[in-house]
Amino acid sequence: MEKDNTHERSECLGCALVNKEVLVHVVYENDLVCCFLDHDPFNEGHTLILPKKHFCYVDEFDSETAIAVMKASQLLSMAIKKLFNPDGITICQNGGKMDDLSHYHMHVVPRYENQSFASFYSEEPWSNEDIKNNLPRTRDALAKTIQELL
Amino acid sequence: MEKDNTHERSECLGCALVNKEVLVHVVYENDLVCCFLDHDPFNEGHTLILPKKHFCYVDEFDSETAIAVMKASQLLSMAIKKLFNPDGITICQNGGKMDDLSHYHMHVVPRYENQSFASFYSEEPWSNEDIKNNLPRTRDALAKTIQELL
Repeated sequence: MEKDNTHERSECLGCALVNKEVLVHVVYENDLVCCFLDHDPFNEGHTLILPKKHFCYVDEFDSETAIAVMKASQLLSMAIKKLFNPDGITICQNGGKMDDLSHYHMHVVPRYENQSFASFYSEEPWSNEDIKNNLPRTRDALAKTIQELL
Repeated sequence: MEKDNTHERSECLGCALVNKEVLVHVVYENDLVCCFLDHDPFNEGHTLILPKKHFCYVDEFDSETAIAVMKASQLLSMAIKKLFNPDGITICQNGGKMDDLSHYHMHVVPRYENQSFASFYSEEPWSNEDIKNNLPRTRDALAKTIQELL
């Protein structure tokens, strides 16, 4: 199903991100999805999966986008485990008024046992300056790991 | 790909739940997934999607399970919006040591603007006795809404 998203694209930050009109550290992309590092990462390797078309809720996806997002989450999960060996991975997506981009984006977040994930959903800033400063190198390492898995 | 999960099934609470060896309020199932209400719901309509086969991480899924889980999340998102009209929906899955069932389960949680979601990831108990007591009626209503959408 083709969707006319010309209007949304002109106003949507998510669309600007997938079209790389603003700086993003892309680790993987194909015709349907763009995956890049979160600019405010919870941990090193925290990645976002965005469909290239403009969607808000998961139930709006056409079937090819649905499959592409799921496959990207599997690929990122494998790559994050291989590169960072976290204690676990949380995959989450906030739709509707809780979607701060107003464009579907799935978080893939490596997690460690000594950290509460409650702060992910609080207003408190995280102490992540070192991870932010390292985004280009994290991008290179994660993109390379993904390519090795393809 | 067929997976031998005989061993895991005998010890896994998630497998016991999808096989209905313990009480679950099923709202939807097919050959690949079972969807039932969370026994400790964050809000009315909070549902879990479990693959019937034993998996821990999303990247272990065979392709038919991957598609079935994604389709179930789309169906539940539609049904929850129709029945409860929440301000948003959070879809989340905690893998590895953060998976308290040790069996992949995706949460689909209706959310409202006056609630922080941080408590979902804290140790504090929720005030949800009324919602818990209403689980059979919620199940009936949500299962009916899902059937209307199929």
